Amino acid sequence: MSQLPPEVYQLIDAAIAEDQTFNDPTSQVLIPAEIIGVGMLRAKASGILAGMDVAGAVFHRVDQDLEVQALLAEGAALAPGSEIGTVTGSAGSILRAERIALNFLQRMSGIASDTNTYVRAVAGCGARIVDTRKTAPGHRYLDKYAVRMGGGHNHRMNLADGILIKDNHIEALRSQEVGLKEVIQRALAGASHTIKVEVEVETLEGVREAVDAGAHIIMLDNMAVDTMREAMQIVKGRAVVEASGGIDLETVRAVAETGVDLISIGGLTHSTRALDISLDLEFT
Amino acid sequence: MSQLPPEVYQLIDAAIAEDQTFNDPTSQVLIPAEIIGVGMLRAKASGILAGMDVAGAVFHRVDQDLEVQALLAEGAALAPGSEIGTVTGSAGSILRAERIALNFLQRMSGIASDTNTYVRAVAGCGARIVDTRKTAPGHRYLDKYAVRMGGGHNHRMNLADGILIKDNHIEALRSQEVGLKEVIQRALAGASHTIKVEVEVETLEGVREAVDAGAHIIMLDNMAVDTMREAMQIVKGRAVVEASGGIDLETVRAVAETGVDLISIGGLTHSTRALDISLDLEFT
Amino acid sequence: MSQLPPEVYQLIDAAIAEDQTFNDPTSQVLIPAEIIGVGMLRAKASGILAGMDVAGAVFHRVDQDLEVQALLAEGAALAPGSEIGTVTGSAGSILRAERIALNFLQRMSGIASDTNTYVRAVAGCGARIVDTRKTAPGHRYLDKYAVRMGGGHNHRMNLADGILIKDNHIEALRSQEVGLKEVIQRALAGASHTIKVEVEVETLEGVREAVDAGAHIIMLDNMAVDTMREAMQIVKGRAVVEASGGIDLETVRAVAETGVDLISIGGLTHSTRALDISLDLEFT
Amino acid sequence: MSQLPPEVYQLIDAAIAEDQTFNDPTSQVLIPAEIIGVGMLRAKASGILAGMDVAGAVFHRVDQDLEVQALLAEGAALAPGSEIGTVTGSAGSILRAERIALNFLQRMSGIASDTNTYVRAVAGCGARIVDTRKTAPGHRYLDKYAVRMGGGHNHRMNLADGILIKDNHIEALRSQEVGLKEVIQRALAGASHTIKVEVEVETLEGVREAVDAGAHIIMLDNMAVDTMREAMQIVKGRAVVEASGGIDLETVRAVAETGVDLISIGGLTHSTRALDISLDLEFT
Amino acid sequence: MSQLPPEVYQLIDAAIAEDQTFNDPTSQVLIPAEIIGVGMLRAKASGILAGMDVAGAVFHRVDQDLEVQALLAEGAALAPGSEIGTVTGSAGSILRAERIALNFLQRMSGIASDTNTYVRAVAGCGARIVDTRKTAPGHRYLDKYAVRMGGGHNHRMNLADGILIKDNHIEALRSQEVGLKEVIQRALAGASHTIKVEVEVETLEGVREAVDAGAHIIMLDNMAVDTMREAMQIVKGRAVVEASGGIDLETVRAVAETGVDLISIGGLTHSTRALDISLDLEFT
Amino acid sequence: MSQLPPEVYQLIDAAIAEDQTFNDPTSQVLIPAEIIGVGMLRAKASGILAGMDVAGAVFHRVDQDLEVQALLAEGAALAPGSEIGTVTGSAGSILRAERIALNFLQRMSGIASDTNTYVRAVAGCGARIVDTRKTAPGHRYLDKYAVRMGGGHNHRMNLADGILIKDNHIEALRSQEVGLKEVIQRALAGASHTIKVEVEVETLEGVREAVDAGAHIIMLDNMAVDTMREAMQIVKGRAVVEASGGIDLETVRAVAETGVDLISIGGLTHSTRALDISLDLEFT
Repeated sequence: MSQLPPEVYQLIDAAIAEDQTFNDPTSQVLIPAEIIGVGMLRAKASGILAGMDVAGAVFHRVDQDLEVQALLAEGAALAPGSEIGTVTGSAGSILRAERIALNFLQRMSGIASDTNTYVRAVAGCGARIVDTRKTAPGHRYLDKYAVRMGGGHNHRMNLADGILIKDNHIEALRSQEVGLKEVIQRALAGASHTIKVEVEVETLEGVREAVDAGAHIIMLDNMAVDTMREAMQIVKGRAVVEASGGIDLETVRAVAETGVDLISIGGLTHSTRALDISLDLEFT
Repeated sequence: MSQLPPEVYQLIDAAIAEDQTFNDPTSQVLIPAEIIGVGMLRAKASGILAGMDVAGAVFHRVDQDLEVQALLAEGAALAPGSEIGTVTGSAGSILRAERIALNFLQRMSGIASDTNTYVRAVAGCGARIVDTRKTAPGHRYLDKYAVRMGGGHNHRMNLADGILIKDNHIEALRSQEVGLKEVIQRALAGASHTIKVEVEVETLEGVREAVDAGAHIIMLDNMAVDTMREAMQIVKGRAVVEASGGIDLETVRAVAETGVDLISIGGLTHSTRALDISLDLEFT
Repeated sequence: MSQLPPEVYQLIDAAIAEDQTFNDPTSQVLIPAEIIGVGMLRAKASGILAGMDVAGAVFHRVDQDLEVQALLAEGAALAPGSEIGTVTGSAGSILRAERIALNFLQRMSGIASDTNTYVRAVAGCGARIVDTRKTAPGHRYLDKYAVRMGGGHNHRMNLADGILIKDNHIEALRSQEVGLKEVIQRALAGASHTIKVEVEVETLEGVREAVDAGAHIIMLDNMAVDTMREAMQIVKGRAVVEASGGIDLETVRAVAETGVDLISIGGLTHSTRALDISLDLEFT
Repeated sequence: MSQLPPEVYQLIDAAIAEDQTFNDPTSQVLIPAEIIGVGMLRAKASGILAGMDVAGAVFHRVDQDLEVQALLAEGAALAPGSEIGTVTGSAGSILRAERIALNFLQRMSGIASDTNTYVRAVAGCGARIVDTRKTAPGHRYLDKYAVRMGGGHNHRMNLADGILIKDNHIEALRSQEVGLKEVIQRALAGASHTIKVEVEVETLEGVREAVDAGAHIIMLDNMAVDTMREAMQIVKGRAVVEASGGIDLETVRAVAETGVDLISIGGLTHSTRALDISLDLEFT
Repeated sequence: MSQLPPEVYQLIDAAIAEDQTFNDPTSQVLIPAEIIGVGMLRAKASGILAGMDVAGAVFHRVDQDLEVQALLAEGAALAPGSEIGTVTGSAGSILRAERIALNFLQRMSGIASDTNTYVRAVAGCGARIVDTRKTAPGHRYLDKYAVRMGGGHNHRMNLADGILIKDNHIEALRSQEVGLKEVIQRALAGASHTIKVEVEVETLEGVREAVDAGAHIIMLDNMAVDTMREAMQIVKGRAVVEASGGIDLETVRAVAETGVDLISIGGLTHSTRALDISLDLEFT
Repeated sequence: MSQLPPEVYQLIDAAIAEDQTFNDPTSQVLIPAEIIGVGMLRAKASGILAGMDVAGAVFHRVDQDLEVQALLAEGAALAPGSEIGTVTGSAGSILRAERIALNFLQRMSGIASDTNTYVRAVAGCGARIVDTRKTAPGHRYLDKYAVRMGGGHNHRMNLADGILIKDNHIEALRSQEVGLKEVIQRALAGASHTIKVEVEVETLEGVREAVDAGAHIIMLDNMAVDTMREAMQIVKGRAVVEASGGIDLETVRAVAETGVDLISIGGLTHSTRALDISLDLEFT
């Protein structure tokens, strides 16, 4: 991830503007320009590292003379005390940039860590843990990258990545007296040749109809584990199967053991828990 | 909040770009342009509403002909089933915009709801629940607004809002052989006349020094409740006192009862939990 | 297309900046503010209309009081003299905006018209005419929209829309001693579940390998028509087939008659021919 | 052109956003980060080179560690097989950026090549081949630069560069009962002292009026070659003369031989033909 | 000026960001949302009005429900107490936007007023008062518009508007052993046909050379009034003459009486004096 | 100031766009690419230097190969002839960028110089010279930085920096029958704990009320010097006192001698006088 897309630099600039990084009276009044320090980024909890490059980009955006060094690879396991990286240079610049750098790093590492907990929970089953489009606005790229660092996989990056027929689409067409089968057939006929068609269903009847109509992917929405198992019997490998809705750490293994291919967890990105990481400034 | 600052419109545009809202094959292939629907935003959990205006702005940015109506005021209490607002118009437009609108609304209502839980936990004590600068990059304005909707107060909006001398600042000056007292005096002398000086201390000795040096605000960092109580005895009203660090719902009331003026909770914004809200599309 | 994505408004603003629309000495010196006129947009050649909404948005961006009315639907057939739409209001504003509005409208209608010529050339065959990513930078959305208005279909909107393994990818992996079959299998294993895998091949041997490896789509690159016909025998419906490279109006029907599913034409967007459309200002 | 204006970097960023360069599953899944390659940009047709610096800027924007080297100067003649430049570094980065770099390079070289064909067609006559404001929105700077590389000259960069009284302006003032002579005199009186006044005329009568009124430049709009010759007799060196409208490669030499000073060709930029250039990735 | 170019809206947004308009604790804490007021913009000094539309745009950008009404036309004469316009609506919104609106209005009216003082000082002479490119960065359009409102004329809007050969250009070419005459001839030969060539000279010898070489415009740089008079004798109407450098209100009439065509005054825009205008909030 | 905030780079880009730096026919036609020169920035008047880093950033934005060297520190005293800095490289690039670089440098040094004149006028009194929010839109950061370089101090950077209750706020609340005392108390109660409350008063009665109500800062608006002296007797150190309104170089010392803490001068930024600085291009 050493190269970041333009939108991430724009997000960093937005963060600098909203934090008024260059109008920081605390550093301005107290920290003489000549004080040079080393900031050590250190984990204070266990988890998975993600976002060190973004943190580095923040430091550079605030002061291009700061030197940033990563001490661990992206995706590395962290324990309390793990040394993640250093930033060396003007103490005033480091202090101005610290909070924004940590806000990125803690959020991204938090997502990676939570993802990894799910990934470990289903180890040995074939199921992939995947994310959703329930990301913080403006953070899609970073949130999804963090999921990958945690060992998860990405569902659609955005609307363009595939056809996903949800209950509201089905409802809209039902109001026109178009049934599920016809909906799926229209999608298959109209879709660009490079993308697949996924359908959200809530009942076994829906599973049957969707598979028969040729849907490439079936999303089992909020189904009980037993019903999922029956659904897998119906699908019998004719489609990829995704389990979705209300799955948490307590239930995820049972879901995975039904044989579904994918388990999507919205909470990975919509209910993030920042991983505790600190920056300790040291002087020599 | 019916008027939003330019940076929020930029964030909405960034969200539209990253979700490829205008390249949605699902709507494009399946939903005829003439289908008109009503989307009902409905709470699926209890909490506090925040962000309906932002959700409305998202719908308008995607299709200026959509009509958005709020059914509840910002800050209103929500129960499962509460009807929050409606969006009426092209079903295709509503479906394209739905996820982004919900991503804002669920995050903001989640922050308001969590804040409110803390506010209720300290009811009757004098302490204010305040936020921190640990917000999602690009979301500072929205996150802090949501805290207010939940009954909380805002700490510094950004670095420019006050002088806050943290451990790293103190460390930097100690490396120059400048002691805490001198640091505070320099801050008081150098600060603009419109802002105050806050100091983070970890020990009772620090509290004493800071108050004697004339700090306007003392932040008790990660102190045990008993130590906080002693600190209050030392301060004796000569400064505003903020408790910070590692306070959760179990401990917050005890902290409040020490008599501190402010309790800051980073988790309100760095570890948000989305409030479950759905959009149900209906046709007449 | 009555709603345009934010990036199109940014492109319009860029066009206004580069044309210095608001620093137009000709209108400023000559056209009194009170002159009101009607500009009639009129085709001067045969073709297909695309882009009237964008032209309208240009006029509104220059002067929000201009009234724009479309007289024909997007995708409509145009003959010399066809009246496309009107813009009414300040003559100075219309004259300032005219060139930019026409630059969009002529380019988009040109693309739609050329596409339509290809679409008509293959009428009755099953093949779809599709575009490529060879669009003018910044015009992806508009160029691809115009292709649809001309009766064509869109290939990938962007890199994220599907896996397309081209010669350079194959070459890169061959340098690592990874063969075509293995490349395709890695792609199938690693791809997100919502997208398909397409492979570019130049020989019948390549076709065989690709189909056997399970590629969803085979792109026949620069193949002779006879060879394509053989390729279709090999594929036998096991994959979608796209013909690509060096196909023009003289050869396209023969290509279509081989039974390929898709024919991609880069020239639709990389070598556009503006459709001649004029704006005639009239006064009453 | 080694330095590009800010608007070109913005256009490059827009191109990266619309192509989702940083969400490329093909490279992500298939190309290991450690593969290093050399991409050779090679002409596949004859023409004139323009845009290598822009292509280089694209590669750098996608990966600042890519090394770009130009092997030919801007404006150089190209033959099939000509080696234009190399880009060395991460194969994944080169592949992600390739299409956008080529989209710029092929369009710009196409414009330069077509311009050059016209320039050669009028060699020996005094006439300059000039462009128009009929450029792709957002590409004004690049399109006009390419015209210069092809040996052409630039007409107005934008509206601010001169007064050009066109038929619609004349029509607007005729509706106020202001005749051509008066229009020109108003323009001469009102114009800033640094710019000239050009008038579009369609008849010899118009030519006479315009020259007598003191117009600095006369544009002969859509005139027959014989009429142009008569027009030159009327003007007799009292004004610069531009021929415009419907001139193509077959007629341009005859037009030039009338002695006009400038021949403007809208098609150079509104109906571009991409020059075929490929990037061949090589491994050592 | 009722329509503003996109760059002015961007400048307004930048002003809102830098003033943190939407984070105004004074209004937030003190002004209840329901208080409606009328703000009267009133001159407190004599001068010329410019910028009311920009002020209006600021109010609308902060709160689209504010109603703005201009009571005087742009360019109108102001005396202490003159009522310029009103803004009606939420008192909180008016107070948040007030300072930015006034910052624009006072600067622009200040420029218009100073310009007008110069224009009146040369009344009856033929000379035009013109501005320079010495404008506040980002304010070119507004500063030059204000000059026009004050009765002045605009010199080049930007570098593209004409060729102006200044001492540094002459020096650069002298270092290549190219003399003034040759410089001017190269400029005349190389210039686009729509722009003119102006030369800055400091001596009568320079005037002679420049006129003889065919320069369209001669700028007399920092010349004494007597020397200017001699220069006019040399030029004898063969070129437009501009006086420039160190001209102030005391000397401008004498300069104008030499018969020069243009007098440029950098101070109009580089040393602006804000016109005193207040906003008085009234309640009914 | 060697690092500039993102908004300053945006302002530089806006300046480049409005000056059409990359469309400069004078340099393009006359200055061969190979001419290398040294531009010396030299003061032509006495004052204080501010903005050399911004000027340097302009040169780099136009041509990253230009080498910029500062010869004096920011805040240094300038006399006519003082050598400020050099820029070395392509003469064409230096000439294209010169005007914008000087526009920044002259404005900022002008503000620093004027500020310094005030600072020297009150030397020995305790009063600080402070600025206001009356800055050129888009220049807040630079204008306030220049004030500091001149020895002045900054008042609020923006609205968020403190509560300042002005006459219009008081008027708004009076319309609700809320008196001054109550207004101040509400402000004290509602303000964030990190900012102070300042009140603008025009009479001694107002002073008394404000101090008694506990305002942290009293702004004496447009008071006569004698009245100010009485006000100081009333305040007796219970609040910080700021004098504001109509103070100029003739009166500032008398105001300072009343013992006020702060004297704010709007004219420092709303009525700037550019300091005369030239760039002389030299060749070796």
